[in-house]
Amino acid sequence: MQDNWKIKCLVPDLPSAEDVLPYLKRVDQNRWYSNFGPLVREFEHTMASMFKEASPALAATRAERTNVATFSSATTALELMLRASGLKKPARILTPALTFSATAASIEITGHTPVFCDVDSDNWCLTPEIAKRISEKYQIDAVLPVAIYGYPIELDTWAEFQRDTGIRVFIDAAAALGNQLIHPDIPICFSLHATKPFGIGEGGLLVASDQLVERARNLSNFAFCDGTSREVGTNAKLAEVLAAYGLAQITRFPEVQARRKQVLDQYIALLGEEHFHPLTKDYVPGTLLIDAPGKAAALERALSDARIQTRKWYFPPLNEHIAFQSAEIIRGDDGTLLPHIDDLKNRLIGLPFHAFLTESDLQEIASVVSKVLES
Amino acid sequence: MQDNWKIKCLVPDLPSAEDVLPYLKRVDQNRWYSNFGPLVREFEHTMASMFKEASPALAATRAERTNVATFSSATTALELMLRASGLKKPARILTPALTFSATAASIEITGHTPVFCDVDSDNWCLTPEIAKRISEKYQIDAVLPVAIYGYPIELDTWAEFQRDTGIRVFIDAAAALGNQLIHPDIPICFSLHATKPFGIGEGGLLVASDQLVERARNLSNFAFCDGTSREVGTNAKLAEVLAAYGLAQITRFPEVQARRKQVLDQYIALLGEEHFHPLTKDYVPGTLLIDAPGKAAALERALSDARIQTRKWYFPPLNEHIAFQSAEIIRGDDGTLLPHIDDLKNRLIGLPFHAFLTESDLQEIASVVSKVLES
Repeated sequence: MQDNWKIKCLVPDLPSAEDVLPYLKRVDQNRWYSNFGPLVREFEHTMASMFKEASPALAATRAERTNVATFSSATTALELMLRASGLKKPARILTPALTFSATAASIEITGHTPVFCDVDSDNWCLTPEIAKRISEKYQIDAVLPVAIYGYPIELDTWAEFQRDTGIRVFIDAAAALGNQLIHPDIPICFSLHATKPFGIGEGGLLVASDQLVERARNLSNFAFCDGTSREVGTNAKLAEVLAAYGLAQITRFPEVQARRKQVLDQYIALLGEEHFHPLTKDYVPGTLLIDAPGKAAALERALSDARIQTRKWYFPPLNEHIAFQSAEIIRGDDGTLLPHIDDLKNRLIGLPFHAFLTESDLQEIASVVSKVLES
Repeated sequence: MQDNWKIKCLVPDLPSAEDVLPYLKRVDQNRWYSNFGPLVREFEHTMASMFKEASPALAATRAERTNVATFSSATTALELMLRASGLKKPARILTPALTFSATAASIEITGHTPVFCDVDSDNWCLTPEIAKRISEKYQIDAVLPVAIYGYPIELDTWAEFQRDTGIRVFIDAAAALGNQLIHPDIPICFSLHATKPFGIGEGGLLVASDQLVERARNLSNFAFCDGTSREVGTNAKLAEVLAAYGLAQITRFPEVQARRKQVLDQYIALLGEEHFHPLTKDYVPGTLLIDAPGKAAALERALSDARIQTRKWYFPPLNEHIAFQSAEIIRGDDGTLLPHIDDLKNRLIGLPFHAFLTESDLQEIASVVSKVLES
């Protein structure tokens, strides 16, 4: 179980047993451990309020009809969002090849077809411009952009894309809780996995219209209606005990974010903001990738030699996974295969980024990184 | 959140926050909250030992190659068991129509076709004899019998069926943890849902060969192999915190079983064992249904009038759920639709059955029941 890293890439920052104890005692008193218990409902309501407060542009009447459901994971949130969406199977769903497996797996497992495309070279995302260009040439039934590394996605242009093209947009914002705003017309999934900024262990959220949220929630409990299943569902409910962790995490989330922000600021001071994603000056990402054109492999080696752990999120891209070999790939304009992702492979490497990094850790990392950057 | 029952049908019996605290402190120390952490592994190993000790007929060499994996629920255990099985889609899977939605939903959602059949009139299960008769007339690719209400299934005859017919057998023993033995050639799923005898909140187990367990476990984490997905998987991992509840529940399970046995014995003393499933004298079921030919509805009414909650597990049967309308139904020999299940509908009603029933509760229930039985 032990690894040999001196500085680990990722260390979860979750509530302690003591933090959670008062909530677990409430669970004991209620004797209600799953199936939409009081703590799950309170967690959903509080998260819904948080999202709405953070998205003041949301008109009041539309905010009222926007809601939050919890699931056993962000993957099951994605799966049930797609199942509940009413998309006709198999829908061709455009999604970036640079993302975590869950994005494409949720498309495949729900009977749809992932269509992989390249990302923007500057913001590392599938953008509305890319989707527009592709949808003019290829049949695309829906788009599933990803808030890569937890940087938020601008939703108004996606809403405009949806309005203009009639192609439905769903967002995978797994790592972006705390950064990503919400929108009444665009369903968004978030992860509560231990490795995410808002970690509870395992869990996921769907933020969407009342109607979609209700159907997805119903599917997470066998689509029961008056004692029989009205469609084929599954069990993807969040256990009450994990909602206890969620409620405890809400209380400490401002501190968690502040600690992460402090580490980020030190990184920027040591290395300069030009080495990070353009949104890094405004948002604390879920994982911190340094952008070092042509030097990703050298950084990985040098840091590893110093027993500093790095991660190559998300390489190889999904089009290279055996699981997704049947997916279609939209090539770049010059006919090359996903040229920007190919380029990013040699630019990006995930540095250690978590709340437990000391100033001396950061100086040590920066010193190794600087040496490689200057070489 | 309050209901108006004086005596509830089902009250979970889970470890308290205090019981779980030492395990949660270990989770804090490990800072490992999911993805096959040390508590999940310890829980799996301990459960595997429990199953093997309870199944002494298991030859040592074969027991070694039998293993246990945990999942987010019994439903995901069933789903990933079927996905990992290598059954060619769509396989026609014979299963009783008298079961919980999860049994058929797991078949449908994994791309297979449920074929519903009747159950044996005496033991309320799909038996090897029924499966044999049907498989001689219809194409059946696999069988998924159910350990109904938590009564155990005799596995040697199912192993013989599997050997003789070449049709693979998988068992849904969701409610039968503590009763159901294991078999090296037959994969079995168990539920750890709060309402089950061994409750942790949400969770499931698969007991099967090393090979099937490993593949199903791998599918529960996106089928990752060296950083890429080798097939289409999902996230169905058990969170470490729920394994903490599992480890705490192992310690108290003998008491839980003893409390349930005591309640059962009082029921038998008050009402007579002839009113219960024939295995009730040897096993404590997951849910206790009284067998009162023609009087199920009258019992439901009389008990409800006395504010005593009952449950009609599992009626209406799955063939009547909208979700499973496309499934095939194998009619009875006389051409009627599932005559035994139809008969059981008027015979069976679930009585309150949990560890918190007092002697006076039981006397009150028995008095209402006796009056109806004698009328």
